[in-house]
Amino acid sequence: MTAHVLFTIFGASGDLAKRKLYPSLFRLYKAGHLGEHFAVIGTARRPWTKEFFEQIVIESLGDLPDNSRQAHAFASHFYYQSHDVNDTEHYVALRNLQKELGQQYDTQNNKVFFLSMAPEFFGTIARHLKSEQIVDGQGFERLIIEKPFGTSLETATQLNNELSETFEENQIYRIDHYLGKEMVQNIFAVRFANIIFEHIWNRDYIESVQISFAESIGVEDRGGYYDHSGALKDMVQNHVLQVLSLLAMDKPASFSEQDVRAEKIKVFQSLKQQTDQEIKQNFIRGQYTAGSIDGKDYPAYLDEANIQENSQTETYAGGVFFVDTDRFRDIPFFFRTGKRLTEKGTRVTIIFKQAEDIFGQHSERNVLTIYIQPTEGFSLSINGKEVGSHFALTPAKLDFRHNATALGNSPEAYEKLFFDVLKGDSTNFSHWEEVKASWTLIDRIVALWQDNQVPLHLYPAGTMGPQAAFDLLESYGSQWIWTPDVWYRERGLLK
Amino acid sequence: MTAHVLFTIFGASGDLAKRKLYPSLFRLYKAGHLGEHFAVIGTARRPWTKEFFEQIVIESLGDLPDNSRQAHAFASHFYYQSHDVNDTEHYVALRNLQKELGQQYDTQNNKVFFLSMAPEFFGTIARHLKSEQIVDGQGFERLIIEKPFGTSLETATQLNNELSETFEENQIYRIDHYLGKEMVQNIFAVRFANIIFEHIWNRDYIESVQISFAESIGVEDRGGYYDHSGALKDMVQNHVLQVLSLLAMDKPASFSEQDVRAEKIKVFQSLKQQTDQEIKQNFIRGQYTAGSIDGKDYPAYLDEANIQENSQTETYAGGVFFVDTDRFRDIPFFFRTGKRLTEKGTRVTIIFKQAEDIFGQHSERNVLTIYIQPTEGFSLSINGKEVGSHFALTPAKLDFRHNATALGNSPEAYEKLFFDVLKGDSTNFSHWEEVKASWTLIDRIVALWQDNQVPLHLYPAGTMGPQAAFDLLESYGSQWIWTPDVWYRERGLLK
Repeated sequence: MTAHVLFTIFGASGDLAKRKLYPSLFRLYKAGHLGEHFAVIGTARRPWTKEFFEQIVIESLGDLPDNSRQAHAFASHFYYQSHDVNDTEHYVALRNLQKELGQQYDTQNNKVFFLSMAPEFFGTIARHLKSEQIVDGQGFERLIIEKPFGTSLETATQLNNELSETFEENQIYRIDHYLGKEMVQNIFAVRFANIIFEHIWNRDYIESVQISFAESIGVEDRGGYYDHSGALKDMVQNHVLQVLSLLAMDKPASFSEQDVRAEKIKVFQSLKQQTDQEIKQNFIRGQYTAGSIDGKDYPAYLDEANIQENSQTETYAGGVFFVDTDRFRDIPFFFRTGKRLTEKGTRVTIIFKQAEDIFGQHSERNVLTIYIQPTEGFSLSINGKEVGSHFALTPAKLDFRHNATALGNSPEAYEKLFFDVLKGDSTNFSHWEEVKASWTLIDRIVALWQDNQVPLHLYPAGTMGPQAAFDLLESYGSQWIWTPDVWYRERGLLK
Repeated sequence: MTAHVLFTIFGASGDLAKRKLYPSLFRLYKAGHLGEHFAVIGTARRPWTKEFFEQIVIESLGDLPDNSRQAHAFASHFYYQSHDVNDTEHYVALRNLQKELGQQYDTQNNKVFFLSMAPEFFGTIARHLKSEQIVDGQGFERLIIEKPFGTSLETATQLNNELSETFEENQIYRIDHYLGKEMVQNIFAVRFANIIFEHIWNRDYIESVQISFAESIGVEDRGGYYDHSGALKDMVQNHVLQVLSLLAMDKPASFSEQDVRAEKIKVFQSLKQQTDQEIKQNFIRGQYTAGSIDGKDYPAYLDEANIQENSQTETYAGGVFFVDTDRFRDIPFFFRTGKRLTEKGTRVTIIFKQAEDIFGQHSERNVLTIYIQPTEGFSLSINGKEVGSHFALTPAKLDFRHNATALGNSPEAYEKLFFDVLKGDSTNFSHWEEVKASWTLIDRIVALWQDNQVPLHLYPAGTMGPQAAFDLLESYGSQWIWTPDVWYRERGLLK
């Protein structure tokens, strides 16, 4: 597929555009998915020239010894338009440029808009796109927006209403970049292309599920934004619940967008509404204090840049969701996400129930782990016989990780997402019904936390979060399966 | 457990005794399962002294820098009695020695007899053991015999009748040394200690099973015996069918001997009696011709030592069994065993059915492999997503092998079997009902083969058997999963 399309990127001078968008478009170009019939309009306040913009684009592609000619040819498709989002005149200029490039590149009026800006501008931009007939109903017209999609159900609804004046739901592509990750898509493959899992993926065989999004970094230079968001809104409302929906969904009739979407929405709408008392017990918030990781010292969250004095923002959120479907009713979906944890890693762990004992001895539960990052792969622990004269059961961990070559070919998440947008496939994006359901749930947790009805637990940087989160799992007769190697290493326990 | 027991070994000067029995008893001794209260009477025709016998035993233990004192203490428990199995007087001498040692070592009249001799003597020995009151009903009395147990249903029945005059079925321990192998016992563990397999171990989920017992050696110095036996009687009647029974059995109520035995016997009795026409199609015999393995040349079977001119003995047997139970009706259990194949290896492969397709693309079947030797372990192939922008399914092979240390501790099969005999646990031995049922089946194949109603296919040494065996699987829409690496290597196909 070689696309006929005009991209318009709002926020073309920003960090995301340079780090992710231009390199991703270049990969699509090199793969032949973009060819002669695409163009990109970059807009931002700064008064750049086309030449300067091209140079920015080329630099964003990194070291290019082998394909600098290709990079220049690619960059020649980029045009720049200085732009004030509130100035109607500027939209007129944009429309004229769009018309001109549309003819020049034969884009067949197909348009993709990417809003890489603060969300407060989204409504204004969408309104002008319609009023100035940049969105004119010809060709396909698709809007890509980045998280966060609102900060509560109320603001998300307002934002959605604004966008809806110009775009239909099926034209809006809400990026959840974890959905673009190889291994998250792998969840589909694992669940539905393996007969050995497909028929036991339910409450009769699965005891609990663990979803971990661990970061070892702190807030870095995002302190200003993060301190107003926190782990719950920044990670749980979107990424954690999206992954949960993939794990908990019923089998779709087909892998088509509509069928997958319908099943995902069913999960979101089946998320159990816990009582206030349950929420207080089942959700843990934490904030890191000073500590060390691998011998290096790190400051407390409160001592990071751009953090309010005595900030109560959580850098850790953990807890347990339930999905009220026949498939998973009463099965705990534990999650945790946090900054300055012992080790970076995103992984999903499925803990199967214990096999009925015919051996008169304890056996471990079967555990399937899906590694999402930084390594990608699977492991499955199964019980075998311990080596020796006696018959004793012992778990063996079967392991598979993508080798370095395969990882080297792993496309950036954005490349994959762009590709999906060009195909008009929104399987890997968040639907409004999903966003709505997740905010409904998250709002109630936020309310209790803001009201200080739940303690803010402190945890030293370099640990896996507050003790309260471990106690929570214990209260369900469970425990976190993943303990980073460094934890054992520092205690001299690693063999 | 430290046993009180007197072993009597018939055939104490033989190869098996030196290579396997004495080292295995020594391992039990070092592990503390044999201590002050055991003694061994070795018998054979040769006129050895106790001192000489002790020396033979010590030498059989191999290099013993660290524990030569222990070896001498161990060997001091060994006594020798020159013996002609037909001479009644000799049994009287044996009884007297047994009495004497019984008192000296406080063996509490417990006796284990090991017949490491040609089967034609078994009846005579058993009869004399009773008539001369060596078997006297005091303490436990157990008889261990090696394969082959008969050469047909008729001879096996005759042998069994002879033994039954002296021993009850539950006193007879028929060794199938593959049952002592770690990984065969592992089949139990895999099947019944893993909820993920237990519930899909049936015809709804399993498409076929493959059992391979491949040897790269030829007949070596066993030509005389082997030429009268052949692969079918030497391997299939016992080892292949035993492993099959472990794979096909229903879940026992407990891991007790009785419960496991009952389920195994059920499988043997449910083995489908195929028609003559089916047998002709479903069982393949082969004989190796000259060839090379890894660049080394080997002669044809007919040119090996002690092989009859124009021998029609099969060095390869392959085919398909069916088990007429609700669990496995109509599911093919393919097997193959042969000498001078490409590579040595015993493994079991479970091929699961294809998952229903929701992706609109082909996916591989899930395959579980249990490696029995020379490496021990498991692998499981599951489908994941191929790395790349497109969604394409690709199989990932999860792998676990015992590491070298664990393998070093792997007890000899005989040690484990001795240990079972001392405990009175015959789970890992063949029951008469099993032997009877398997001969019933094998006899019919033998009859058609001897009648030359089935061609003897030739295959070059160093291949994986005759083409007819591959064609057989193809006729079932299947193919052998295991192709040795060397096959690819020699064709320059191994990456």
